[in-house]
Amino acid sequence: MGSDGMDVGFLGLGIMGIAMARNLLKRGFKVTVWNRSPAKCEELAKEGASIGSSPADVVKKCPITIAMLADPSVALSVALGPDGVVEGISPGKGYVDMSTVDSGTSSRIAEAVAAKGGDFLEAPVSGSKQPAEMATLIILAAGSKSLFDKVRPAFDAMGKKSFYLNDVGGGAKMKLVVNMIMGSMMAAFSEGLSLADKAGLSQQTLLEVLELGAMGNPMFKMKGPSMIDGKYTTAFPLKHQQKDMRLALALGDELAQSMPVAAAANETYKKARSLGLGDQDFSAVHQALAHEAANASDSAKAAA
Amino acid sequence: MGSDGMDVGFLGLGIMGIAMARNLLKRGFKVTVWNRSPAKCEELAKEGASIGSSPADVVKKCPITIAMLADPSVALSVALGPDGVVEGISPGKGYVDMSTVDSGTSSRIAEAVAAKGGDFLEAPVSGSKQPAEMATLIILAAGSKSLFDKVRPAFDAMGKKSFYLNDVGGGAKMKLVVNMIMGSMMAAFSEGLSLADKAGLSQQTLLEVLELGAMGNPMFKMKGPSMIDGKYTTAFPLKHQQKDMRLALALGDELAQSMPVAAAANETYKKARSLGLGDQDFSAVHQALAHEAANASDSAKAAA
Amino acid sequence: MGSDGMDVGFLGLGIMGIAMARNLLKRGFKVTVWNRSPAKCEELAKEGASIGSSPADVVKKCPITIAMLADPSVALSVALGPDGVVEGISPGKGYVDMSTVDSGTSSRIAEAVAAKGGDFLEAPVSGSKQPAEMATLIILAAGSKSLFDKVRPAFDAMGKKSFYLNDVGGGAKMKLVVNMIMGSMMAAFSEGLSLADKAGLSQQTLLEVLELGAMGNPMFKMKGPSMIDGKYTTAFPLKHQQKDMRLALALGDELAQSMPVAAAANETYKKARSLGLGDQDFSAVHQALAHEAANASDSAKAAA
Amino acid sequence: MGSDGMDVGFLGLGIMGIAMARNLLKRGFKVTVWNRSPAKCEELAKEGASIGSSPADVVKKCPITIAMLADPSVALSVALGPDGVVEGISPGKGYVDMSTVDSGTSSRIAEAVAAKGGDFLEAPVSGSKQPAEMATLIILAAGSKSLFDKVRPAFDAMGKKSFYLNDVGGGAKMKLVVNMIMGSMMAAFSEGLSLADKAGLSQQTLLEVLELGAMGNPMFKMKGPSMIDGKYTTAFPLKHQQKDMRLALALGDELAQSMPVAAAANETYKKARSLGLGDQDFSAVHQALAHEAANASDSAKAAA
Repeated sequence: MGSDGMDVGFLGLGIMGIAMARNLLKRGFKVTVWNRSPAKCEELAKEGASIGSSPADVVKKCPITIAMLADPSVALSVALGPDGVVEGISPGKGYVDMSTVDSGTSSRIAEAVAAKGGDFLEAPVSGSKQPAEMATLIILAAGSKSLFDKVRPAFDAMGKKSFYLNDVGGGAKMKLVVNMIMGSMMAAFSEGLSLADKAGLSQQTLLEVLELGAMGNPMFKMKGPSMIDGKYTTAFPLKHQQKDMRLALALGDELAQSMPVAAAANETYKKARSLGLGDQDFSAVHQALAHEAANASDSAKAAA
Repeated sequence: MGSDGMDVGFLGLGIMGIAMARNLLKRGFKVTVWNRSPAKCEELAKEGASIGSSPADVVKKCPITIAMLADPSVALSVALGPDGVVEGISPGKGYVDMSTVDSGTSSRIAEAVAAKGGDFLEAPVSGSKQPAEMATLIILAAGSKSLFDKVRPAFDAMGKKSFYLNDVGGGAKMKLVVNMIMGSMMAAFSEGLSLADKAGLSQQTLLEVLELGAMGNPMFKMKGPSMIDGKYTTAFPLKHQQKDMRLALALGDELAQSMPVAAAANETYKKARSLGLGDQDFSAVHQALAHEAANASDSAKAAA
Repeated sequence: MGSDGMDVGFLGLGIMGIAMARNLLKRGFKVTVWNRSPAKCEELAKEGASIGSSPADVVKKCPITIAMLADPSVALSVALGPDGVVEGISPGKGYVDMSTVDSGTSSRIAEAVAAKGGDFLEAPVSGSKQPAEMATLIILAAGSKSLFDKVRPAFDAMGKKSFYLNDVGGGAKMKLVVNMIMGSMMAAFSEGLSLADKAGLSQQTLLEVLELGAMGNPMFKMKGPSMIDGKYTTAFPLKHQQKDMRLALALGDELAQSMPVAAAANETYKKARSLGLGDQDFSAVHQALAHEAANASDSAKAAA
Repeated sequence: MGSDGMDVGFLGLGIMGIAMARNLLKRGFKVTVWNRSPAKCEELAKEGASIGSSPADVVKKCPITIAMLADPSVALSVALGPDGVVEGISPGKGYVDMSTVDSGTSSRIAEAVAAKGGDFLEAPVSGSKQPAEMATLIILAAGSKSLFDKVRPAFDAMGKKSFYLNDVGGGAKMKLVVNMIMGSMMAAFSEGLSLADKAGLSQQTLLEVLELGAMGNPMFKMKGPSMIDGKYTTAFPLKHQQKDMRLALALGDELAQSMPVAAAANETYKKARSLGLGDQDFSAVHQALAHEAANASDSAKAAA
């Protein structure tokens, strides 16, 4: 299940992308990279990568090109803009977009690639910086099945598991469902921590009890201690979590699926954004529930 | 950390209690049991237990007596009724109530035991039938610290970890916080399963993705597959989960702690109760979100 | 529909009670009053009232006695305490408690009155200070139908309409339902004002548009302008509104009626309490939604 | 405040449009009408209207043209399509779109009109069929102030009040805020009716109590009795109410305004859609809360 010296293009060397491209190099892939600012390319060149002059150039040189870009607008301009991916596509070429984009963006790129005779796969990931570095991403791919089979060794080099989710759009939707559950869990966890604190219970003990029981999970374990300390170092920005909640709710709206818990959690994330916490870690939703703690004694009186 | 042949009384041999008493016997404790219907006592007598004629009789015979009773009203009558626990209490005796009761009930029993010179510990558990059998309960004790220290070997025989949570009431509150988080997580999980299904995604794949990521936890793993099949075999009845949500929200009300996610989840459990699902497993909250699935195509049209 | 010189006792001369007793005097009733602090009695004596020395004394002197007391504990001690209402009750006497109390309190008083052969009516009101003064209260009576018929002329002197709601408890429940709708409406109205403001719309214009349409109602008209100014002069304290939301939700819990809007509104009132707004008017729930307005521009950026 | 024989074009003779155009004719305006299916035009021609051959033709003939079209896509094609409004626009001409459209649609039309030198006003209305017929619409106009001043006599002929809300987009936003409050109020009202019913109270009495108090409003009065009877004759379809809730929540999302009550109400409307109620009146949200009433006795047992 090695690389067999397989040729792969890689577009976008941000925090995630550079770690992913590096894992490909380590596993023996021949990687041709491109990035908007070229410094990052040179960094990887020292580790064995070739450098392409544009997205189109990379696509022309490699049978399969992978992209990991910041957001939908960048994904669109890299794919469809001048010297972009589509200019380099010809029959038999494969393009794998691992960026997190909405389904409209994904569809536009898929159509443009198909119009030139290429194969397309959307493949957003679950996991952020650390899993990218450790090659433990979870890859949610959808689109061309034959391209999925071909690119599989590369997925194996970057992640611990990849799923094939049928038609384009399936990967993005699965990611929204997962992140919606994550957002509700984090908000529920924050409510529990806040309630424990106001009730005079040790939040540290609450973490231990949760860890030992059927609800124990790496997220509570990893985030809990710093949340108790009021520290929310950004791994996944709160504003992105809230955006994913919103998109998941919009998907539910389209399908007439009522999701009252996610809706309530989403309002709490919006509250957190309004308090200026959008750029902190999504666990800072805790702050939106806890920030009035100073008045607790007053309010207990008010309630008496 | 063995039993050293320690004498322990045990009151209440329901599903949980019989498993717990059996674990005490296995670990070498000398156990004197009492149960309202005597058949269960004889079962344990074959495994080495002595039988007491009444709660008072057990308490008189043993330095420490443990109880695991069905609900607050049984807990009260066993403790305070004729031939009850309190009649047997004298200075130096310890009474450990592991039943799940409200804080008012706990306080009344604590006061009655103290009035006779005894020590009291409330010690509700996190975990149901299977952890009781496997001796992997989590024990949330509060009340007399010296009694906690004395009864510890028995706790170690029945659970994987015990916590001391200060004054009487702390154990019950911690359990409410934990069960509130559990209820919100289960409702959020159900929303995710329902959304995945309506969106044409494989719910089985969703389980796999969740299991691999930071949110993976035993509850999703254990309950997920049967929820997908629409089977909700009762481990923890939905009506009890909803009651715990209600009590946790009441605690938050008292302390002026806003908990919008738990409140939304609670309404979903109430909806489930109104659909007649109260006696099924709490994972049947899934049904309250999914039950209109038959109309999905109509509603998609309606929304167009 | 006059008083025909009817004799009525009146217990409790707080803000509401004094206005109600005064309306009875104005309409020609012969009123015997009692109040914990006697100064208020003397005020009414100048307007023609007689003064009783205790609740029991008033009940002995009058065929029907009405009470308007601060809260359940006062209602209980005035009814059941030494020299209380029940001591004066004998067959044929009627006692009408117009205080806002929970159904447990109401039932205890009803039983004690019945045990002495008297008739009982609970009769909480909808409306606060101004309607009490203007004799425009809405009276929600339940209990003895014959007492309801007898006391009707007095109700007509104090309110614009009285309803008979069958068994004791019906009046209290109807009041909870009404106040629950009121609380949700006020929270929804506050959300609308806050959204209009953030969207750069004139809140004053929103009030005008609402007033002209099918949703126009006296509450929005009366409270809206001061809410825009951030003024929440207390007519009905927020902590009491929140308590009524909680009790209505508890009633829904008992009956398995899901009420997600009321539950969400209740959490917003709790939030307001935690911000120290419990003693302000219930319209201060607006503050819980709007208080972060200062950061609006930051957060808009964060969301971009 | 008469028409002074003013010339006005009118595009779109659906349920709303035909009533509005008729009111213009009655008040003495010279009206030139156009409709996709010409039968409606002939109906109005009998009442004095002239008929235009296309939107462009109407605009060329009249200094000001008003449109009332079914939805954004029709509004776009009538304005920008072949023989559409914009083809007839020249400097000095005014176009007033009273259709309910999203702000993107409104902006595109505004720009196209401006590019030809014309003036544009968006002017969605609050009120449906009956207010259209009775000339009691509330008009929420935004865009060209000079056009607003010119078209005012026509607004006065169709509505009871018109508001000028600054830049294009303001009218649409104000309508969303109003409809969001309406949707939350209706959901809260439905919860109250359902709770009253389960609590054994007369829903009819609840209506009377509400009507008499500070919350009394025409909507509760008009819709309440038929809701009690389970009849939801469509005046404003539930799916449109839900769409407006969604759009209002999206506006709040953009502005970081938390609106938990509207979010909870929206989920209830989604639930109603999933039950196939999307084409019934928005008051059918009542059904989503009440539909399990049949099981109430079971569930009360389950809760015991």
